[in-house]
Order: sequence, then structure tokens, then C-alpha cells
Amino acid sequence: MLLPELQIQLGNIGANLKYFKSISKKETEIGIVVKCDAYGLGLRKIVKFFSTQNVKTYFTATLKEAIQVRRTDKSAKIYTLNGFYFEKILDYHRYNIYPVINNIIEVKKFLAADFGPTGGAVQINAGMNRLGINRKTLKENINLIKKIPINLIISHLSSADEPNSEANNQQRKEFLRCCEYFSPKIRKSLAASHGALLNKDFHFDLIRLGIGVYGGIKDKNLRSVLQIRTPIINTYTIKKGMGVGYNLTFTAKETMKIATVPIGYGDGISRLLSNRGFLFDQNIKCPIVGRVSMDLITVDISDLKIEPSYLNFFTDRYDVSDMAKQTDTISHEVFVKLGNRYKRKYFK
Amino acid sequence: MLLPELQIQLGNIGANLKYFKSISKKETEIGIVVKCDAYGLGLRKIVKFFSTQNVKTYFTATLKEAIQVRRTDKSAKIYTLNGFYFEKILDYHRYNIYPVINNIIEVKKFLAADFGPTGGAVQINAGMNRLGINRKTLKENINLIKKIPINLIISHLSSADEPNSEANNQQRKEFLRCCEYFSPKIRKSLAASHGALLNKDFHFDLIRLGIGVYGGIKDKNLRSVLQIRTPIINTYTIKKGMGVGYNLTFTAKETMKIATVPIGYGDGISRLLSNRGFLFDQNIKCPIVGRVSMDLITVDISDLKIEPSYLNFFTDRYDVSDMAKQTDTISHEVFVKLGNRYKRKYFK
Repeated sequence: MLLPELQIQLGNIGANLKYFKSISKKETEIGIVVKCDAYGLGLRKIVKFFSTQNVKTYFTATLKEAIQVRRTDKSAKIYTLNGFYFEKILDYHRYNIYPVINNIIEVKKFLAADFGPTGGAVQINAGMNRLGINRKTLKENINLIKKIPINLIISHLSSADEPNSEANNQQRKEFLRCCEYFSPKIRKSLAASHGALLNKDFHFDLIRLGIGVYGGIKDKNLRSVLQIRTPIINTYTIKKGMGVGYNLTFTAKETMKIATVPIGYGDGISRLLSNRGFLFDQNIKCPIVGRVSMDLITVDISDLKIEPSYLNFFTDRYDVSDMAKQTDTISHEVFVKLGNRYKRKYFK
Repeated sequence: MLLPELQIQLGNIGANLKYFKSISKKETEIGIVVKCDAYGLGLRKIVKFFSTQNVKTYFTATLKEAIQVRRTDKSAKIYTLNGFYFEKILDYHRYNIYPVINNIIEVKKFLAADFGPTGGAVQINAGMNRLGINRKTLKENINLIKKIPINLIISHLSSADEPNSEANNQQRKEFLRCCEYFSPKIRKSLAASHGALLNKDFHFDLIRLGIGVYGGIKDKNLRSVLQIRTPIINTYTIKKGMGVGYNLTFTAKETMKIATVPIGYGDGISRLLSNRGFLFDQNIKCPIVGRVSMDLITVDISDLKIEPSYLNFFTDRYDVSDMAKQTDTISHEVFVKLGNRYKRKYFK
């Protein structure tokens, strides 16, 4: 019995990157978002891959993640999105990391530092009201803000996954109004993956791709990237009336064959998939029966003619987006909950 | 701004351990379950703590976790629950780890090994139909099974969190029937935390405590263990009609104050808590407004007289069990999804 594997198709990540290139202007740079261990896919391997694809700019949430990127790519531009950790200001200097500055307190901390970062981005609040400087605050403090060696102005769309939302154009306009306070030479970035799919008007100088390259958007032009392969560690033939799993929430209606696999909600397979999710043998659906446990799932394999050694999670018929939908969330959350117990295996 | 912290009260874990001791017979040993990084609390620190509390037996899901335990406690008995990884059989030998044997294939692999484990447990399927050997299979293969140097017979209750379920007594009886095939000198273990709370008849020689000591069971005799403290990285005053967060799912009904904290569903705060969960300043509830993002949450702090530097997740008014209930799961899943980005801080 080998270990459960996360199989990551780097080739498909590359194909997705190519697709985004094909819909962008030549002069638009593609930066990659690798926060949360590169959406659970393994930050260092993912950065290593993208550095072979001519990617030069990365975005992380935290400083710790940024340092991990630096250890993998000596020359990349690296931005931390999630606030300026000024207690660690020397690390920004030492590892040459650019904080994204989100408010006036952070501006002041940046300027007060002797050995602070050599540059940074400014985040604009274009209407999401989560992070970034408002236009009014910007106007009132522009002289102070301009003292920072700013090399990028960024903002984030609230509703880019709703192409018809008025918020997209409103926020784009607000972003541009705010950018007017800065030199036009400073580069601008508004769009993440969904924003990049809207149209080129949202691209500006740099698009920041995460979920789109990792295969979390259902789109005919994008490929899925992730598959889980798990060994079967036990099988039973159970009879009509017998229960399965915690609280015996499943009862066999007839004689059936059950397989147990050694992954569970501790490995990101949501407990909401109890009695609802599927694993696969090739393309044959094997329904999850009973509760998903922390480390184990029980699966109905009655329909299989030959008992397999392995089952798969995610196929063309049921990918990360489908699981997200079934568990009332988005692909992003499925990715970041995969956990550390899988063996991660990368394919070219 | 300091980093978001997971604050873990080892003293309360100790108090919970004491409570379980107080309801057990003197001769019943307490073993501790530390699978999934000790339910997200940090395996090595947790094992180190329990070794000061005279704990001598640990249970993990995987072999890798078991090796981590061995590196922390040189003399402990360590069992892997989640199948016998016989490709790695030398590691069982080298690190002196006991596999829990779940079926006849594993029995044969155990016996075929030259440098295999020096002992092991046998798991009985008492009715959960997930792992373990059925009575019929046991009877047919008992001579083979007895060749293994078995030092523990275990099984697991499906419905121990339902004290009135008939399954508890049925499965206890089935377990005892199966145990009759073995020497009465071999120790027996049936109960995990909920099973230990049923009554002493379920305890036998060893109870296996996980969620109960980690503060995931709501019980007047058990204490909560976990608190999250997060800095506030941004605040806004927003006006009536303004939206917050992805897809602007929250709209302000009046002028209000919003705080942004740098944790999100990438840190185990379920996206299902969007517009439903709470953070706290001391004991004052601050509702989550808008969508929980991967790395950020926006919170209504309008009711606070003084803007705090930090907010807390989990208090006496809203603990892990409450969050589990609100997100349609159990405490266990909340624990194991906490992720790796927090600074874990341990208190005596």
C-alpha cells in the first residue's frame, strides 16, 4: 500500500498560463499568487515551475510565505498582500520583499524605518472595503504617500466572477481616479484571475493569477490540475440492513461492497460530502457512504467488476469546482484545505 | 502588528486529562490520539506536554506521524491506526512502532516480514464497517492471526456521542465476543473520548483520548483549550449603502466601523461563516460582515468604544463546538483545518 498522493499536473498549469497570455496584451506582465502554500499545491515546487515559465513577480499573503519564495527564486519581485508586518521590517530589507501598503499607519511605519524595504506597492480601496487606501484619505495624504518608493499600484475587484456586475466597471473607474494622484509611470494592477477573464480593459500593467492557473475555474479554455489517488486499505461485503461509519448514517439496502480509503476531512475532503461525494475508479463513480471521518472514507464499490488497489478523487466528471459547489464554497477553499499528509507528486 | 496566534492552554488540556482520570478505574490506562498534527494543535509540543503527565501510549493515523511522536518520546508505545504501510515495514522496526492490523492481508504481510514491527494491535470490526476484522473472518483465521505478537485488541464505537444509541451496547458485546478468541491476558481498548464518557463498562484496559482532552466536547466538566488572537490590520468607517468583501454580500444599513483581520478560510475560519460568524473584543461580539476571504475577514466593530489592536476568535460564549455547529460539522474538523500560518503559542 502506497501513500495517498496529490498529483499535480504542472503541464496543465503551464497550459493555463499560456491561455491567460493569449488573452492579454503583450505588454501586460503575469504575476503569480502563491499564498497559502500556493493554494495547497506546494509553494516551492510551484515557484520553481513558474520560474521556468519566465514569471518574475509573485504575491503572497504573509512575510513568511514571501521569504519561502525568495529562497526559491533569488531574483523575483515579491509582494506581501496581507498587511505590512513592520515588527519584521529588517526581513523585508534582508530578503528584498515589497510590502503592499494598505493604510496611512503603514505608510508612516515604512517611512520611519532605517533599514526598511527598498520599495513597495500601494493598495487602493476601490469599493471592496477590505484593504487599501480610500480616495479621500489618499488625497489628504498624497504628499506623505509619495515619499515611499512605490513601484506598483494595486487594487482588487469584489465581483470579478460576476461578469455582468456593475461593480466591476465602477471599481475600475474608482481605481483609475485614485491612480491619477500618482505618476503615470508607476505600474498598475487591478485584476486577479477572474478579473483577467473579464477583458483587457481590466489588465493594465500586471495581472495576478492564482486560482485560474491552478485549475479552480470551470472554463472551456482552462484545464484542471489536481487529482488525488488513494490506496484502498480495507474492503467488506456488507449485508442488507448493516450500517456504515459514524452514527451509522448509511444503511445498506442490499448486499454491497464497501472500500475504506485512508484520507478524510483531515486531508481536505469535507465532512459535508458524507453520503454525498464520489470517488472514482477510472471513470466509474463510487459514492461515499456514511460519514467522512478525519482519516478515513468509506466508499461503495459494488459496481466495480474488479476490485481496484486505488481510487481517485477528481476526474473530468467531478473536479475541484464541482466539489466546491457541492460543499457550498469556492474552489479556493477546497485547495487550501488539502493539508500536509498527502505525498505531493508533480507531473510535467 | 504581531502575527495571528493560536493560543493553546496546556493547563486546560491537563485539567481535561485529570477529569477523564477521575471517571476511570485506577487500572485503566489513558492513551492519547495525536493524529493530524495532534488535531492541529502541534504534535510535538502536545506529545512533550503529555509525556510530563505520565502518558505512555499514543495513537496516530499514519506512520509519518508515528515517527514524529517517536522523535519526541523515546520510550512511548506508539500505534498507527490507519492501516499497515508495509512498504515501509523497516520503519516500524527502526522506530519501534506498532501497526494496528485491520485485515487478513495485513496479518500476512506482518508475518512475512523479516525485520517487521516487534508487536502490534489487532482491530476488530464491531459494527462500524470501516476498519477491522469481522468476527467471521477472525474465527476462520484465528490461528494465523495469533502468530502476531499482539499486545492490544482495539475497536471503535460508531455512535458513542449518542449515549442512548443501542449501537453502543451491541458493539460492546460484539467486541467482547471477538476478544474471546484471544488470550484474556491481551489488553483491550474500545473507547475514544465519547466512549469514555459513556461509562466505565466501555473503558476496559485503555481509553484513547483525543477531542475530549483538546477541548472539543461541550461538557460542564471539560474546559476549552483554544483561542485565536489576531491583530487588526485595517479599519474603515463606511456609510449606509456601501458593500463589503467579495460579491459585496454585505451592505451597510447605517454608518459603521469595519475592521479587517489577516486570517481567513486558509486559516480554518470556514467560508460558511461569511455574514454569520463572530470575533470578540473581550466579551463583546463583533459580527463577521461580508465574505470570509482566504487570508482576510472583515468584522463589524461599530459597538466598540475603543478601537482594539486585536480581536479574538473563540471565547466562553462561542467555542470550537459552537463554530462546528454553525458550520454543520463537528469540533474535530474545526481543529484539523486550522492550518500552518498561525504562530502557535502554548500556555501552562
